[in-house]
Amino acid sequence: MELSRFKEIALKYKVIFFDAYGVLKTYKGILPGVKEMLVFLQENNIDFYVLTNDASRSPELLVKGYHNAGITEITQHKVISSGMLAREYIQNKVEHGRIAYLGTEASAHYIEKDGLQTVSIKDLDIETCGDVTALVFLDDEGYDWNVDLNKTLNLLRKRPIPVIVANTDGTYPVAKKDVAISVGAVADMIEKLARKTFIRFGKPDSQIFNYAMENAVRDDSATKNDILMVGDSLVTDIIGGNKFGIDTCLVLSGNILPENYELMIQSLGIIPDYICESVAT
Amino acid sequence: MELSRFKEIALKYKVIFFDAYGVLKTYKGILPGVKEMLVFLQENNIDFYVLTNDASRSPELLVKGYHNAGITEITQHKVISSGMLAREYIQNKVEHGRIAYLGTEASAHYIEKDGLQTVSIKDLDIETCGDVTALVFLDDEGYDWNVDLNKTLNLLRKRPIPVIVANTDGTYPVAKKDVAISVGAVADMIEKLARKTFIRFGKPDSQIFNYAMENAVRDDSATKNDILMVGDSLVTDIIGGNKFGIDTCLVLSGNILPENYELMIQSLGIIPDYICESVAT
Amino acid sequence: MELSRFKEIALKYKVIFFDAYGVLKTYKGILPGVKEMLVFLQENNIDFYVLTNDASRSPELLVKGYHNAGITEITQHKVISSGMLAREYIQNKVEHGRIAYLGTEASAHYIEKDGLQTVSIKDLDIETCGDVTALVFLDDEGYDWNVDLNKTLNLLRKRPIPVIVANTDGTYPVAKKDVAISVGAVADMIEKLARKTFIRFGKPDSQIFNYAMENAVRDDSATKNDILMVGDSLVTDIIGGNKFGIDTCLVLSGNILPENYELMIQSLGIIPDYICESVAT
Amino acid sequence: MELSRFKEIALKYKVIFFDAYGVLKTYKGILPGVKEMLVFLQENNIDFYVLTNDASRSPELLVKGYHNAGITEITQHKVISSGMLAREYIQNKVEHGRIAYLGTEASAHYIEKDGLQTVSIKDLDIETCGDVTALVFLDDEGYDWNVDLNKTLNLLRKRPIPVIVANTDGTYPVAKKDVAISVGAVADMIEKLARKTFIRFGKPDSQIFNYAMENAVRDDSATKNDILMVGDSLVTDIIGGNKFGIDTCLVLSGNILPENYELMIQSLGIIPDYICESVAT
Repeated sequence: MELSRFKEIALKYKVIFFDAYGVLKTYKGILPGVKEMLVFLQENNIDFYVLTNDASRSPELLVKGYHNAGITEITQHKVISSGMLAREYIQNKVEHGRIAYLGTEASAHYIEKDGLQTVSIKDLDIETCGDVTALVFLDDEGYDWNVDLNKTLNLLRKRPIPVIVANTDGTYPVAKKDVAISVGAVADMIEKLARKTFIRFGKPDSQIFNYAMENAVRDDSATKNDILMVGDSLVTDIIGGNKFGIDTCLVLSGNILPENYELMIQSLGIIPDYICESVAT
Repeated sequence: MELSRFKEIALKYKVIFFDAYGVLKTYKGILPGVKEMLVFLQENNIDFYVLTNDASRSPELLVKGYHNAGITEITQHKVISSGMLAREYIQNKVEHGRIAYLGTEASAHYIEKDGLQTVSIKDLDIETCGDVTALVFLDDEGYDWNVDLNKTLNLLRKRPIPVIVANTDGTYPVAKKDVAISVGAVADMIEKLARKTFIRFGKPDSQIFNYAMENAVRDDSATKNDILMVGDSLVTDIIGGNKFGIDTCLVLSGNILPENYELMIQSLGIIPDYICESVAT
Repeated sequence: MELSRFKEIALKYKVIFFDAYGVLKTYKGILPGVKEMLVFLQENNIDFYVLTNDASRSPELLVKGYHNAGITEITQHKVISSGMLAREYIQNKVEHGRIAYLGTEASAHYIEKDGLQTVSIKDLDIETCGDVTALVFLDDEGYDWNVDLNKTLNLLRKRPIPVIVANTDGTYPVAKKDVAISVGAVADMIEKLARKTFIRFGKPDSQIFNYAMENAVRDDSATKNDILMVGDSLVTDIIGGNKFGIDTCLVLSGNILPENYELMIQSLGIIPDYICESVAT
Repeated sequence: MELSRFKEIALKYKVIFFDAYGVLKTYKGILPGVKEMLVFLQENNIDFYVLTNDASRSPELLVKGYHNAGITEITQHKVISSGMLAREYIQNKVEHGRIAYLGTEASAHYIEKDGLQTVSIKDLDIETCGDVTALVFLDDEGYDWNVDLNKTLNLLRKRPIPVIVANTDGTYPVAKKDVAISVGAVADMIEKLARKTFIRFGKPDSQIFNYAMENAVRDDSATKNDILMVGDSLVTDIIGGNKFGIDTCLVLSGNILPENYELMIQSLGIIPDYICESVAT
């Protein structure tokens, strides 16, 4: 497949969904040309949103990161995180008791609900867990993996409760060649050992795309044909967008390198509608 | 958990989503009391839809089966099958070439599109497959498993195309104690051997619930709080409804027996809002 | 890693274990130079055996194929097939009843035992299966996949019996670019649907190496240090030999192509002691 | 299946292989009647060995635990741990460089080799890991799971080295109802994220049975027919013994409770030759 220029493609759509990591930013900060591109979209009346598998920080805090880097175009309303789907689940389905979570205190933002208490697994006394009514995997930080994952497994052996995984990613990049294990991989291990079926939120599942379309996109006349998903990962962004029924654009500024995108597409059979070097083109 | 009477529960909702197999019918035919229950819903202005993991027959043919059994309350508009999501994908994302499929000619209904040709794997000549642009798993019948699954695997080794699985179920009941292997299990085997990532439609994935809500439900004022999902399977119907954010009701007339539903709920951690012996109660 | 010449390496060992497919032969017949190499081994008093994941034909029939191609150096005593391990299991552990199998009549050779009856799944009446005491997956031919795999699944739902898989391979080559699905992949699908734990025989499991060393190798003084495993597959031959504790040699005449062996070794982390273009070098 | 008395069964064999946990001891200590049973075996000239999935401590230390509890019948020669297979692999296959490990310093006993250095992952500097030639998972203790598992994953992204898992268990019991996550489950998570193929040692794989038979059993005339494997787990001890071709005896003093052993055997299709309440019967 030939490479396209991103701005030419963007002009065909009313709404653009961006993945964050590898598309707008990397471990080093905002990618060059992102601000100009967002201004270009605004000038052309193209709306945009950031869809991110992240439940470690609230949209307020996520937006603060962009603002600190001078990207004021991304406002709080424009960020849709997988944590927001976990929050919707808690609001709809958990009515009493305490909600246990794995993550930092900042991540617990997503599971707060009037009248309900939250408790970090690290503070949970397993002997008095009879009132725990749900467990949520939010972040890979904020607890001792050895002690608290053992405690989590034993909680699930004692309490028949729904388990929500608010970030399905397996790893995330932390340096040029280094990655860190994400809470999604930790949840996979515990699910297999506990022999439960967990509830997962985040790309590639279609629910986050639908949530964005229903709750965020301002232009009610926009249909699936008017939306483009832009991402750096075939197995989350591109297959997710394809399945949801919107057009997709792979960028080569993150997960997949320019030298092997053709092999990756061919071997996985996941085919984007467009490929661009980056969103700055 | 205590058992509830279905009609009492139904009165709390504006819209009911029913699974078909094990809820409305079994291998022996329509379950007793189903017609009376549907009339009761109509008398009380409660709308209802059938959400089924099935791509073997068109909604027309599915409805005919109900009508032949005297259930005229289920009209074509009320049936949402996973095949319809495959059709939406084909309409949105496949623009040229031939679409290969595994299934009967009746199932090919779902993948017909103006200007495109369809070809059953059993009729495909693997030497001239260069114009095949998608592959769809529709049904476990209509082809020779040995010859044609080998052909399917080799097609995927030659052509980097998207693969759609229009029914994710592993087995389906065919007699009191006997089951048949469903096309979903066959697709799992081929996906693993081909090392591709297939696109799957059907419960428990939220897309079929969303499709029903957007394209079928007539009352536009109905929100997720107004909808109840009724099913006999924890791992497709109940977890799917829970994840989508609607209330769920497990019935014990199919997959799960009255003597072990408590153990099943406890061991899987998938918790319905209500449990009823059947929809006839 | 640098390529070595096979004959130079062979001289360091007392015994050589060869994989068959991709090492001694392909779908087109015996590879060039194999006969000369085997004569070279005999002249240098190096013993050799063929270790093959195959239960479709008896060692007699397997040897006949070599003899017809002029390779008389491979005698019946020199062939160790995974079917022979299935036979040992049947001899040791099944004492009465009928043994059901998936495969041709030729493959049933491996499961015959004095006083026991065998029955092909295609001839089994599921209504009178109460005396079936074991099930063996032998070959992908000899039965109707659709009808008889459904029958197999229902047999396992009725009878709590051990299930033996006599060939763990997922696919096998049948032409330059085409493969066929092997009985190992079929068994994986049925095992998952039946939620049983099957007993598997064949490389990479160490049992076939041990069987060869104990039952075939004539020189009782030969230790693991005196044996070399030669194969074309990292995930069966090389990891199997490495784990068993013998030296290993990858050849590039089959499964892995000369242009990507370095990438494959690096990405899998399975490291042979030597690499040769073929056994003819 | 009917329950048998263990001593009556034992008299039919020359050699008995015992699993340790759930058979001879639990988290509370040695099970009642074990010493008397071992004395009974000695009086009847029946030899015995302990086969355990454990690489956390050397046989010396494992034996010390029995001796402190008064079980002097279990000597160092009688303990075969999965760590000993990892040691054999290192001796045979790793010739230079440093061997990295996850575990305590006590567990590193298994991977020491003349001329080679070992390094705990917790002490490894990832910037200077170019001389690391193998990685071994030994124990779930001795390192920080979060920091050091991330370091392990990045080591495997940088170095194409063999990875050995010296204990395949997923969990182990630590109190009446509580379990701890074992190093086998941690290795599964890392293997999936790194997309490598690890080498595993321990039951149910046949290699530990073969190692015991070849290296430990004193009576060289003993054949597989003379050996009985006694264990509390169907999926490690019983299927492992069955596959290796020796008789098997399930005891109900550990993993599987007297009230559900019939259901477990039926649902898994793993069938022991005998069942006993405990080895004290």
